[in-house]
Amino acid sequence: MLSNSEFRQQAHKAVDWIADYLDNIEKFPVKSQILPGSIKAQLPENAPDKGENMEIIFDDFASIIPPGITHWQHPGFMALFPSNHSYESVLAEMLVAGLGINAMVWETSPAATELEERMMEWIGNNFGIPAGWKGVIHDTASTSTLTAIISAREKYSQFKINQHGYNNFNALTLYCSAQTHYSIEKGAKAAGIGLDNVIKIATDENYAMQAAALEKQIQNDLAAGKQPFMVVAALGTTSSLAFDPLSAISAICKKYNLWLHIDAAYAGAAFVLEEYQHYLNGIIDADSYVFNAHKWLFTNFDCSLYFVKDAQLLINTFSSNPDYLKRTMDEVTNFKDWGLPLGRRFRALKLWFMLRSFGIDGIKLHLRKHIALAQHFLAKLLSGTNWELMAPFQMNVLCIRFHPAHIQDNDALNKINENIIQSINATGKFYLSGTRLNGNFVIRVVIGQTHVEKRHVEELVMLLHQVTA
Amino acid sequence: MLSNSEFRQQAHKAVDWIADYLDNIEKFPVKSQILPGSIKAQLPENAPDKGENMEIIFDDFASIIPPGITHWQHPGFMALFPSNHSYESVLAEMLVAGLGINAMVWETSPAATELEERMMEWIGNNFGIPAGWKGVIHDTASTSTLTAIISAREKYSQFKINQHGYNNFNALTLYCSAQTHYSIEKGAKAAGIGLDNVIKIATDENYAMQAAALEKQIQNDLAAGKQPFMVVAALGTTSSLAFDPLSAISAICKKYNLWLHIDAAYAGAAFVLEEYQHYLNGIIDADSYVFNAHKWLFTNFDCSLYFVKDAQLLINTFSSNPDYLKRTMDEVTNFKDWGLPLGRRFRALKLWFMLRSFGIDGIKLHLRKHIALAQHFLAKLLSGTNWELMAPFQMNVLCIRFHPAHIQDNDALNKINENIIQSINATGKFYLSGTRLNGNFVIRVVIGQTHVEKRHVEELVMLLHQVTA
Repeated sequence: MLSNSEFRQQAHKAVDWIADYLDNIEKFPVKSQILPGSIKAQLPENAPDKGENMEIIFDDFASIIPPGITHWQHPGFMALFPSNHSYESVLAEMLVAGLGINAMVWETSPAATELEERMMEWIGNNFGIPAGWKGVIHDTASTSTLTAIISAREKYSQFKINQHGYNNFNALTLYCSAQTHYSIEKGAKAAGIGLDNVIKIATDENYAMQAAALEKQIQNDLAAGKQPFMVVAALGTTSSLAFDPLSAISAICKKYNLWLHIDAAYAGAAFVLEEYQHYLNGIIDADSYVFNAHKWLFTNFDCSLYFVKDAQLLINTFSSNPDYLKRTMDEVTNFKDWGLPLGRRFRALKLWFMLRSFGIDGIKLHLRKHIALAQHFLAKLLSGTNWELMAPFQMNVLCIRFHPAHIQDNDALNKINENIIQSINATGKFYLSGTRLNGNFVIRVVIGQTHVEKRHVEELVMLLHQVTA
Repeated sequence: MLSNSEFRQQAHKAVDWIADYLDNIEKFPVKSQILPGSIKAQLPENAPDKGENMEIIFDDFASIIPPGITHWQHPGFMALFPSNHSYESVLAEMLVAGLGINAMVWETSPAATELEERMMEWIGNNFGIPAGWKGVIHDTASTSTLTAIISAREKYSQFKINQHGYNNFNALTLYCSAQTHYSIEKGAKAAGIGLDNVIKIATDENYAMQAAALEKQIQNDLAAGKQPFMVVAALGTTSSLAFDPLSAISAICKKYNLWLHIDAAYAGAAFVLEEYQHYLNGIIDADSYVFNAHKWLFTNFDCSLYFVKDAQLLINTFSSNPDYLKRTMDEVTNFKDWGLPLGRRFRALKLWFMLRSFGIDGIKLHLRKHIALAQHFLAKLLSGTNWELMAPFQMNVLCIRFHPAHIQDNDALNKINENIIQSINATGKFYLSGTRLNGNFVIRVVIGQTHVEKRHVEELVMLLHQVTA
C-alpha cells in the first residue's frame, strides 16, 4: 500500500500525465484502432500475490491503456453524443476522489447533499425548469427515465403496484415516438410494463411526434380498455435531434391525466440560450424532466440532472427507512429516497466548479460557438457536390448523406455512406457514427466537443470531399 | 474556462490539498457536526453570469465544504459499513477523470471493457466465484440486486414479462430473511413484484435465515397457487453480519428451480481469506452474486462487483440495439447490455491499481488486521462492566449494548444506548451508528477503515467505558 508521501509523488506525476495527455490529445487517433482482445492479452490471467511497485503499474497504465482508449475529449469526437468534460470538472472529480465520501443521506456528508440541492436550483433557474420543481443528480438519463416510469406507474396505481404487484394494472400503456431513445423501452421492460405496451407514435417529416396521432391512439386505447398512464416526449431525439411538439403533447397529457416525462438528454444544455427556450413551452404541465450535464455541459460523466414537479411523490415511490439507516432529523433531504441506488457519489462539486468558472455567460458563449461551427460545417459541406441533409439541421447535430445523382439504389447508397464513416474514422482525426432515418443510413456529425475549433470542421469537410471525390 | 497550464497548476494544488487532507484527517470530527442548512446558506441563490477565478472557487471549496463532510476515510469511521478508498484507487480515479471516457460499449474505449473483463476474472479467481461465471461492475449493490431480480423474473417468465408485462405472472414471490438489506424490497417494488410478494423468512437466534422455514413457505405458496421464482440469501446481513446457510438454501433453490441471488455486499471482500470460504458452500448452484469493492476492498465508491452464472441470460434480459448504436463487431463485450444504464464509468482502472499495488497477500494482511483489531476491541470492551454482545461476533462487525444490571426496561436501555452513540459521535473522534435486533436498540461498531490502528480501537473502548462510568 502506498504511503501518503508516495501518493503525493505519484499524484503529481498523474497530474502532469493528465495535463500532457489533454494538451497532446490530437496526436491520438480519436477512435481506438486496436483489435478485439489486444488489451486483454497484455494483462496477466491472475492478480499478483505480492504487491507491485507503483512506478511499474503507472508505466503499464501509460503504455497499455491509451491505445485502447477512444478519446472522448478529442475535438474530433463527433460521434454519438459527445460527453464533454472540462478542466474544472476534472479538478472537482480529483477532489471528490480524495474525499472518498458516500452521499447516501444528509448525515453522511451534509455538504454533498446541500451543494447538490443548490446546484440543482442554479440549473433550474437558468435552463428553463419551472419554479418550484426539485432536482437530483443520477448517473445516466437511462436511470432518470426509469425513475420517471416507476414514479408515473405508482402515481397511476396510487402506489398499489409497489405494494401488491401489477394485478389489475396489466394494461398500462406508455407513449413515445418511434424516434425516442431505447432507454424508454428498456425502462418499461425493467419496470414490468412490457414492450408491447410501449406504443410508438408516428413522427412527421421532421422526425417529431405527431400530436394528433398521439391523441387518437390514446382515445382508441381507452376505448379498448387499456390504461394509458404516461407519455415520454423527446426534446432532441438521438438520431437527428428532432423536437417533439411539447406544447401540444403537454395539453393532451393534461386532458387525459397522463404523466409527461421529457427526455432532453443532449439538447437540454442549450435551453440556457433564449433562442431555444420556446421548445420548452408546455413544460409547466409536465411531471418530470431530464438532461445530462455530462453531454454538452462541460461536466464529467456521470452527471444526469433529473427534475420533478412533485418531489414528495418521488420520495413516496422510492423511500424506505430500515433500522440501520434510521435518522433523527427528518427535515433534511436524504437523496437515497430520490431514486434507486442507496450509495451515491458526490457529483455536485463538479457542477459547482464548472458553473462558477465558466459563468452562465461563458456557457452560452461555448454553446453558440459550437452551433456556429455546425452552420459553418454545413455550408462548407454543401458547397461540394452530391451531399444532402437528411433531417432538419438542429443546433449542432447534422444528419448528412453522400448521394451521387447516378446512384438510386438505397442499399448501394447505404453501403457508400457506411464506407465513408469507416474511411474517416480510419484517419484517426475524427470519430463519426451513423444511424438510420426512414430506412436510409445517414452519417451523423455532432459539432460539440469542448475544444472543437473552426480548423477541425474545415478539415472534416475537406476529408469528406476527398473520400468522395 | 481554464487553460491547460492553469489546470496543471490548480491540479497540483489539488493533489497537495488531498495529500494534506488525508494526512491530517484525524484533526476533523469524523461525523460532520454542522446544522442543517448551514452549507446551503453559504452558497449564493444563483449561478454567476460572469466566470469566476479558480483561486477563489478553490478557496471557497476549502473553507465551505470540509465542515460539511462526514469523513469516511477517517480511521474512526465505524458506522454503517465503511466505504474505504486507498491511495491507489484515488490515483486511478484521477486518471479516469482526466481521460473522460464513457465505457458504454467496447468501441467507445476497448481498454475500459477489456480491463473490466480481466479484473472481474482476477476477482473471481481469488474471491470464491465459481469458474465460468462472468462479472460486470455496477454502481451499487442496490443496482446489482435489481439487475438480479429482473433477470430472475425474465428467466421464470421466459422473457414474457419484458415483452408483454405481467399478465399471468401476478403471483411471483421472492424470498429473503427479515434481516436482508432493504434494497431487496426496493428492487422488488421497482421491478413490479410488489412488496406483498417479498416473503420474509424467519431467522434463527443468530439472525440467519431458517432454511427449513424457507422450504415450508415455498411449499405452502406453491400449494396456494403462488409463483415462487427467487431467493435472496445474505452472506453478512447489514445489521449484524449474519450469514444465511447458503448450502441448505442453495439445495432448496435447486429442488424448486428458483433463482438464487447472493448478497455479500460487505463480507464478500473477506472471502479472499481461506478461513471464511466455507460460507460460500453452495454458490455453485446459485445464479448471481454481488459484493462491493467500495466497502471493504480499498477501492473508491462506486464499484459494485456483480457476477452471474449465465451471462447470455443477463444479456438477453437487458440488451437491445438501436440504429444509432449498431456495432459491426458482435464478438466483443458491450457492457451496456449487462445492466440498466447505457453510459458507464471506467471503473476497472481503480481495481487494477489497487489489486496490483496491494497484491492478494496485502489484501489478506489488511483484512486479517481489521479482524484481529475487532477481536481486541471486544476483549477490551467486555473487560469493563455491563457491556453485552447482542449478536454473534462476525469478522469485524460488533453489535453491542450497555446494560447495567439494575435496568430491565427495554425502552430505557434503548434510550441509554442511543445516547451513548450521540456522546461518542459528539467527540468527533468516532462515528458509530445503531440498529435494532429483536426490538432492542444496539450499537454497531465496524472496525474496517483502511487506516484503523490498535490505538483507535483502544481509545474507543476507553471512551465507551468513560461515558458509561
